[in-house]
Amino acid sequence: MEVNNRLAGFVLMIALFVLSSCNGGQSIDNREMETERVGVEKEVFAEDGIVRLSKIEVYPEYLDEYLKYAVEVGSISLQTEVGVLSMYALQDKDNPCKITILETCASAGAYKSHIASSHFQKYKQGTLHMVKTLELCDQRPLNPSNKIENYIE
Amino acid sequence: MEVNNRLAGFVLMIALFVLSSCNGGQSIDNREMETERVGVEKEVFAEDGIVRLSKIEVYPEYLDEYLKYAVEVGSISLQTEVGVLSMYALQDKDNPCKITILETCASAGAYKSHIASSHFQKYKQGTLHMVKTLELCDQRPLNPSNKIENYIE
Repeated sequence: MEVNNRLAGFVLMIALFVLSSCNGGQSIDNREMETERVGVEKEVFAEDGIVRLSKIEVYPEYLDEYLKYAVEVGSISLQTEVGVLSMYALQDKDNPCKITILETCASAGAYKSHIASSHFQKYKQGTLHMVKTLELCDQRPLNPSNKIENYIE
Repeated sequence: MEVNNRLAGFVLMIALFVLSSCNGGQSIDNREMETERVGVEKEVFAEDGIVRLSKIEVYPEYLDEYLKYAVEVGSISLQTEVGVLSMYALQDKDNPCKITILETCASAGAYKSHIASSHFQKYKQGTLHMVKTLELCDQRPLNPSNKIENYIE
């Protein structure tokens, strides 16, 4: 009976060890899943955060070249900037020269940091002559519970 | 030794059982986490999926009432429709009567199902007299790797 009691204790220890390992593994997996998605851990949207629709019309002769710049700046901003929460670019099917970008910056500081970045300046200076019109339309999301997550896969 | 061998087998069985329970528990937790967020498991965006910017101008005298309808239809659609992947409504800060809704439907069928739903029909019929102009502008996302997830928190 002495041997059996020791073995029963051993069973309990093994079971508790395996159980605790499982829980630890799960929380690490979740963190890794989030990090894999967004490139960097993102800041929380602050009081002075910005939600914007940038409406751009591109000269047709520069459209293909413009699109490459737009895809590049969107990808780098989303993947590397902690304060860029969305950068989702859409091309109008009926008017392919009309581009709309949904941009969300976590704060005014995050926006300043974004427009000062080398990737944004490359886009801005590189496409100046391609852009016919640009409208920056700041927005208010209608429903604070309605959330967007934007990431590069 | 015969008793000890049986107990060693028992230890192994307990350890394997706890381990398999842990893995099962983890995947259920992940599913629950997703379900909590979006309400229902979402369909994958198909070949005939729709990404749209709906641009609405509302008569000022109906604006407050319109916003309630818009918030309601967005919440219900996102939470209950498997084919409604986004329904993100924005109000222009400079022209509050101008609303833009980013709508993504997983397929043409999902879109048909959406406009046939009772919550959409309530919104559509209830706001007809409030809407001054409506433009449905279908879009093509510039970068297929750039993903949006939209959910009600």
